Amino acid sequence: MKRYEKFADDIAELIRSGMLGPGQRVPSVRYASQTYGVSPSTVFQAYYLLERRGLIRARPRSGYFVNNHAPRPFSEPVISSQVHESTEVDVSELVFSVLNSIKDPGTVPFGSAFPSPTLFPLQRLSRSLSSATRDMDPRVVVTDMSPGNPQLRRQIALRYMVGGLMLPMEELLVTNGALEALNLCLQAVTEPGDLVAIEAPAFYASLQVLERLKLKAVEIPVHPRDGIDLDVLEQTLERHPIKACWCMTSFQNPVGATMPEERKQALVELLRRHQVPLIEDDVYAELYYGQQAPKPAKAFDTEGLVMHCGSFAKSLAPGYRIGWVAAGRYAQKIERLKLMTSLCASMPAQAAIADYLQHGGYDRHLRKLRYALEEQQSAMLAAIARHFPAQTRVSHPAGGYFLWLELPEQIDSLKLFQMALAQGISIAPGPIFSATRRFRNCIRLNYGSPWTDTSEKAMETLGRIIRSLLTRQDN
Amino acid sequence: MKRYEKFADDIAELIRSGMLGPGQRVPSVRYASQTYGVSPSTVFQAYYLLERRGLIRARPRSGYFVNNHAPRPFSEPVISSQVHESTEVDVSELVFSVLNSIKDPGTVPFGSAFPSPTLFPLQRLSRSLSSATRDMDPRVVVTDMSPGNPQLRRQIALRYMVGGLMLPMEELLVTNGALEALNLCLQAVTEPGDLVAIEAPAFYASLQVLERLKLKAVEIPVHPRDGIDLDVLEQTLERHPIKACWCMTSFQNPVGATMPEERKQALVELLRRHQVPLIEDDVYAELYYGQQAPKPAKAFDTEGLVMHCGSFAKSLAPGYRIGWVAAGRYAQKIERLKLMTSLCASMPAQAAIADYLQHGGYDRHLRKLRYALEEQQSAMLAAIARHFPAQTRVSHPAGGYFLWLELPEQIDSLKLFQMALAQGISIAPGPIFSATRRFRNCIRLNYGSPWTDTSEKAMETLGRIIRSLLTRQDN
Repeated sequence: MKRYEKFADDIAELIRSGMLGPGQRVPSVRYASQTYGVSPSTVFQAYYLLERRGLIRARPRSGYFVNNHAPRPFSEPVISSQVHESTEVDVSELVFSVLNSIKDPGTVPFGSAFPSPTLFPLQRLSRSLSSATRDMDPRVVVTDMSPGNPQLRRQIALRYMVGGLMLPMEELLVTNGALEALNLCLQAVTEPGDLVAIEAPAFYASLQVLERLKLKAVEIPVHPRDGIDLDVLEQTLERHPIKACWCMTSFQNPVGATMPEERKQALVELLRRHQVPLIEDDVYAELYYGQQAPKPAKAFDTEGLVMHCGSFAKSLAPGYRIGWVAAGRYAQKIERLKLMTSLCASMPAQAAIADYLQHGGYDRHLRKLRYALEEQQSAMLAAIARHFPAQTRVSHPAGGYFLWLELPEQIDSLKLFQMALAQGISIAPGPIFSATRRFRNCIRLNYGSPWTDTSEKAMETLGRIIRSLLTRQDN
Repeated sequence: MKRYEKFADDIAELIRSGMLGPGQRVPSVRYASQTYGVSPSTVFQAYYLLERRGLIRARPRSGYFVNNHAPRPFSEPVISSQVHESTEVDVSELVFSVLNSIKDPGTVPFGSAFPSPTLFPLQRLSRSLSSATRDMDPRVVVTDMSPGNPQLRRQIALRYMVGGLMLPMEELLVTNGALEALNLCLQAVTEPGDLVAIEAPAFYASLQVLERLKLKAVEIPVHPRDGIDLDVLEQTLERHPIKACWCMTSFQNPVGATMPEERKQALVELLRRHQVPLIEDDVYAELYYGQQAPKPAKAFDTEGLVMHCGSFAKSLAPGYRIGWVAAGRYAQKIERLKLMTSLCASMPAQAAIADYLQHGGYDRHLRKLRYALEEQQSAMLAAIARHFPAQTRVSHPAGGYFLWLELPEQIDSLKLFQMALAQGISIAPGPIFSATRRFRNCIRLNYGSPWTDTSEKAMETLGRIIRSLLTRQDN
């Protein structure tokens, strides 16, 4: 990381933490240069960067000021702590209509689950594909089948190591994206009819997987800042024969919550006491805006009970379908399930990503990607402030590319979804994130695409539709 | 196809059908040239090709003669028609030890399920990878996710069309290899505990899939030449609530059977009467030695009850993990299951194969591959004749790369597997191909690798071990 980037991050942290409030002046260039021991040009570069990220703004002849929407003036959504009894899951129909809505490239993809593919180094990856497969020993087709390309697994292990986590190579299995990893983990520890504790709201794909495997969901509330409610989880574990707990510990989809480290540790300890395996879905791990990646719960696992699932789909290579699981004591079982399900992940994609991780400049790419996402978050928050009703509550994730909005109670997000789609705008309505179809007045918005006039206009349109729904209700 | 290749194929057909017997003289160059209206040099080229394929042999100054092992002098294995009641499946442990045995590149891979990767145009594919992904529109990552790359699906539809089968594009879904396709098909039409009719012997992967999905197998005998026993299947359908029938209609793994067209038609008709879906595993379809590809059962399907599964793994791109299913009336259900299981198949691999199919010379490659496999079959049959006991019965598949051997009754193929492995030779023992662990005196041998001195020596060693086991038994 360059010096000015480091300095910019320090200032961003002050803004995020509230030390520098909206409208406040950031240190003058001369003062900052003296205090922090950096050159004035470094400070300028840093402020320019922060400006581009939407965090500060220059006022002619008065210096730089924190933007009004950072931290944004919204309250956080309130997620009820009510526990629902276990439920058979059936959300697919609804999800498929949302998925279909984003297929048209003309639609504004606020409802998408993916960041814009234009943010990824696809051409550089194409070169890696070519060079990694040109002289590939044909025998690897058989020898590397399972648990996966050894260079790739070594690179993944290295990244864990840099994050402070020493994992034995045997634990690491390459999969067809994280979705397959999650499927296999769940199959390794459950039988049809079993109960699984999941978050509420939860990523709809996890609900679909439960549905497919005929498992029952026990929904545990997620707080927008701290993540899964540990008290409710504890009561649930005491009352029900829960066979697995599946949660997203950082930048949770959809609400954006990141559990603080001590809560992750408490989660692992709680599950350990009950000997319930944790399936940790950590696919947004690399998309943090702070100084460093949040530690996964896996870091506190002493008994191999945590299966940590990751992916390159959201951070590097969408469409390559390369994910992995660090599967603890379940590694062998999962490896075998995988051999029976899909044999192995695509070899060229594995080899290309291994090559890129070694030579492609992954960390540089990630830094740019994180800046872009944070900038886009600011832009979307500002647009919400401009166009949405004042009662709107919004989460404030420190990573990823989703905002979770709680709209006024009268709003039916399914109706909003239909009306927005008629205007060429997709959104993800709250009920698809719940086995019990709750969160009717909530929506998830994706800011994973570069912000344009179209985005701004779409937000304006959304705001207008919401207001029209409010007025109608009032009559 | 070139003129001499066509002529060579005609002669090969005469040999295969028995019109030209072992030791018989093939038409002289002059006679052939006059009768068939081709030039003498075309005849020479054809005979030279047949010689390389191991079908004929030149005797100095006397012309060309049919080799003694073509058709080989073996009897066919006899598969008992006894029906076993439905069985919970548990073959995995055994299968995994066989799979592990072939991972060491020093081991002679007669036990492998794969042809040698050296037979495939991997470098040419690498070029396709590079050119197909270099200028890929990033948006395809989202738009092509499901049901798959449209160019690839069009190419697959074209190949069906050339084979006389018009399929609507909507039926065609790209999958992570045929194994995923088969998994999804089975899930689309069964619930845990259901009964599925499968072949005996059957490819062990299908047994593993049943095991994983907690389905019960009803084993229907397969005749080495005609395939699944339709009478037994009919009785079974009448007696049991069979939810699906899974079979490999051409070049069946492991016995090599290809159902004649009229039997395929009868199979489809029988299942239609009972409204039982057919999962047709046709991954060896392109590896025929005759004049043309055998028609799949799907060709006789009028009600969308047949799910036809194919793959490029055995014919073009091992390790790319690209398969497909033409799923009839189940297409939408399977597409959705797929979205919940692994989202989509690796995009670069799909794009590369689409590019190769359009520009790479797939048919030329296939022709070479088929010749190589047929030549290797001849060599292995000859080695069996030389080294194995006379009572050995061998199947005579007209495609693929497996021989199924029935050894003298006293032979325990699991013991043979262990003893051969100690000598660096892997084989596939009969019991892994049965839910009830039958076929104890049978083995499957893979001739999918170029024939070398090592292959010949390995066959000699195998023969010696078998004889030693026979002698021991006699004492």
